[in-house]
Amino acid sequence: MDRTASTALASLDASLIDDTFKGFPTAAQPVKLGEIGKQGWNLLKGDLPFPVAVLKTSAIDHNSRWMDRFRKEQGVELCPHGKTTMSPQLFQRQLADGAWGITVATTQQLRISRVYGVSRVIMANQLIDPQGIRYVLAEMKRDPNFEFYCLVDSPAAVQRLAEIAKTANVGRPLRLLLEGGIAGGRTGCRTMEQAAAVAKAVLAGAPHVILRGVEGFEGIIDGASPEDRAAKVRAFVDFLGSIAKRGIAENWFGAGEIIATAGGSAEFDIVADAWRNGDFGAPVKVVLRSGCYLTHDSGLYENRFHDIQKRGIASTALANNGPKAALEVWTLVQSIPEPGLAFVTMGKRDVSFDVSLPVPIAWSPAGAASAEPMPKGNAVIKLNDQHGYLKGPADAPWKVGDRVAFGVSHPCTTFDRWQLIYLVDDAYNVTGAIRTFF
Amino acid sequence: MDRTASTALASLDASLIDDTFKGFPTAAQPVKLGEIGKQGWNLLKGDLPFPVAVLKTSAIDHNSRWMDRFRKEQGVELCPHGKTTMSPQLFQRQLADGAWGITVATTQQLRISRVYGVSRVIMANQLIDPQGIRYVLAEMKRDPNFEFYCLVDSPAAVQRLAEIAKTANVGRPLRLLLEGGIAGGRTGCRTMEQAAAVAKAVLAGAPHVILRGVEGFEGIIDGASPEDRAAKVRAFVDFLGSIAKRGIAENWFGAGEIIATAGGSAEFDIVADAWRNGDFGAPVKVVLRSGCYLTHDSGLYENRFHDIQKRGIASTALANNGPKAALEVWTLVQSIPEPGLAFVTMGKRDVSFDVSLPVPIAWSPAGAASAEPMPKGNAVIKLNDQHGYLKGPADAPWKVGDRVAFGVSHPCTTFDRWQLIYLVDDAYNVTGAIRTFF
Repeated sequence: MDRTASTALASLDASLIDDTFKGFPTAAQPVKLGEIGKQGWNLLKGDLPFPVAVLKTSAIDHNSRWMDRFRKEQGVELCPHGKTTMSPQLFQRQLADGAWGITVATTQQLRISRVYGVSRVIMANQLIDPQGIRYVLAEMKRDPNFEFYCLVDSPAAVQRLAEIAKTANVGRPLRLLLEGGIAGGRTGCRTMEQAAAVAKAVLAGAPHVILRGVEGFEGIIDGASPEDRAAKVRAFVDFLGSIAKRGIAENWFGAGEIIATAGGSAEFDIVADAWRNGDFGAPVKVVLRSGCYLTHDSGLYENRFHDIQKRGIASTALANNGPKAALEVWTLVQSIPEPGLAFVTMGKRDVSFDVSLPVPIAWSPAGAASAEPMPKGNAVIKLNDQHGYLKGPADAPWKVGDRVAFGVSHPCTTFDRWQLIYLVDDAYNVTGAIRTFF
Repeated sequence: MDRTASTALASLDASLIDDTFKGFPTAAQPVKLGEIGKQGWNLLKGDLPFPVAVLKTSAIDHNSRWMDRFRKEQGVELCPHGKTTMSPQLFQRQLADGAWGITVATTQQLRISRVYGVSRVIMANQLIDPQGIRYVLAEMKRDPNFEFYCLVDSPAAVQRLAEIAKTANVGRPLRLLLEGGIAGGRTGCRTMEQAAAVAKAVLAGAPHVILRGVEGFEGIIDGASPEDRAAKVRAFVDFLGSIAKRGIAENWFGAGEIIATAGGSAEFDIVADAWRNGDFGAPVKVVLRSGCYLTHDSGLYENRFHDIQKRGIASTALANNGPKAALEVWTLVQSIPEPGLAFVTMGKRDVSFDVSLPVPIAWSPAGAASAEPMPKGNAVIKLNDQHGYLKGPADAPWKVGDRVAFGVSHPCTTFDRWQLIYLVDDAYNVTGAIRTFF
């Protein structure tokens, strides 16, 4: 951790958190972020208001170590997507556990990563906002250790970057990754011809811009079955590899390290498998960008991990002891107007609903000191802005005032609903808290 | 505006906003919130980063006056739902324009309203969190002018409130509204018998709790057609009215003002029409709770206003000059990898998608000083976390680097994605900014 990072994180630790933050005890005196873990709070003892979001540190620790073992086993690097959590404290944890850098999606996210001292950043997006372009170039000039990469998928965008970089006169080139895409998909060159045209534009923009490798995002690919999806992902990763190979053959890339990067949180194993011994014609550094492994989830990524287990790319030791869900949202039952239909204090403002609805995982009667697994047959059937509809059997165990915990599906869109998330041990003692910046 | 409000708002105005807030110029020096309007910034001149959210003050002014005229015309009160914007600055605007109080959905929202000096609050929800109950009672004790109402729909919840209120010994009763609901709907008593049981429990809890009226939320009712929905809403509002009538006949309510409150942002006219001359057996104060009228939108509520026009409850003068969309999210085109398919710098983290996708409304070529209406045939077809898919004809006017503005459908879930929203005039000069607290 460099000095900027430690100073900024110390300042964050010293910042006062008060009850304008959702989840902070109602009307409690403000507490420094870094001292929240010293308050002796416990979720089940009624020290926190509801709803409240917590991260289980046992799962975070396990997951962080898990991914480091996976990437070492495969001989690849990890540049986790910071957009998932947007928490500088978690970024530092990921870097300390061996991450090569941090990935971001926007200039605001880039700025947060820089404020908190991240020195190697992939912006897995086109850099298009003039304010963002000027900022990146100014940061490169100010900090010789700032290693920044962004994507390009059109000659027009390359020319725009090259022109502004020429004016800024940083003294070293802006590092670009040639983005490959898929027809009907998202950004990125659809064909080798498009990719070659972009590479040509970068070469024409030298020495202000330089191509440092290839990039793609396979996470948007869907399929009729897990096997079909995996086959399509593999074909796309092979297409990206073929761009790298041609680039090496035709000297698109500058002297020095060549990077190939892909890999969201569902098929990172396929990317590692395709590329770790890839026939590129020169050494290539393979960089995965998974973001959700750190907290995992109780829906989308839990299911997708079963596919990873079946594919058998990760070693059996890793596949049998995969990531665990760390993120939970705790609520109160506020009304049971019909038998088997409860309303909990959690809505669209508090939890993800874009991939699937939250999953009831645990339940604790009012006043109880511990929680029990939620019996089968309970499910969230709908969310309003501030209400969750929990359907269960007519003899469901919960009563008005009881606590119900939910796992999430797709962590990203739960993280962005909380500026303050508690760190808890397995007994729900609060051991700390993180801030997010969305 | 009382002293607490003006002190707290002055303190908010003095708070420093920096580029850790999404939408603040990248790497600019921090500016006090109250001085953002003095910076001479203009969205189209490139002074703001993208994406950015703005509120058109001409529309806000119009809408605020519109609703005040509507409620006066109908002879009812307005207690706008603060959950929509969660902006204390907008709450004060609404109160200054004649609102009777502010509605909230959660104890955190209640707390924000109290920090910023709102003295009359309806919590349109059960008050169930022990921390929240204790807070309300402490606030009632501290501030004799604090007028608070919350909902009850079960004897168990009433007993819980009465017991804690008894211990707190505030010296005046906690004011409750008997919530009516609809089978298969959300919270609230489904039948008159259930309502009578709740009323009996409140009477048994005297003098610590008191029933002050009835409440319901018709906004969750759907129908096969606008007419079908309107008929169901009317039937539900009549059911709530019958609870009020029986309560008056059987002395469920304490001496003093009796309140009947319902009315979201789509069918508030039906509520006013049903109740303003209601045959309750005693005078009843009718309180609407619409929240979205202030910003309106470009989807859900725009469509629903056509139904209001057709129903003819609002006067022709008001119906012909209804609310205007105030909230826009501006983005940049970052990639056009296929003809007619653009990717804009806006995703699920930046804009609502829960009711329908954002609507492209305007477009401004890079460097242009003004914006043009977006031609027909352009639509958002998908959002990822940080990307928007804009589909248009192969000869769509936008190019990489151009600016595209989107209207939203359902303002609530766009507001909660921005802590900082600019106020702009019709030429997109920044005249100020609001903070939100989610």
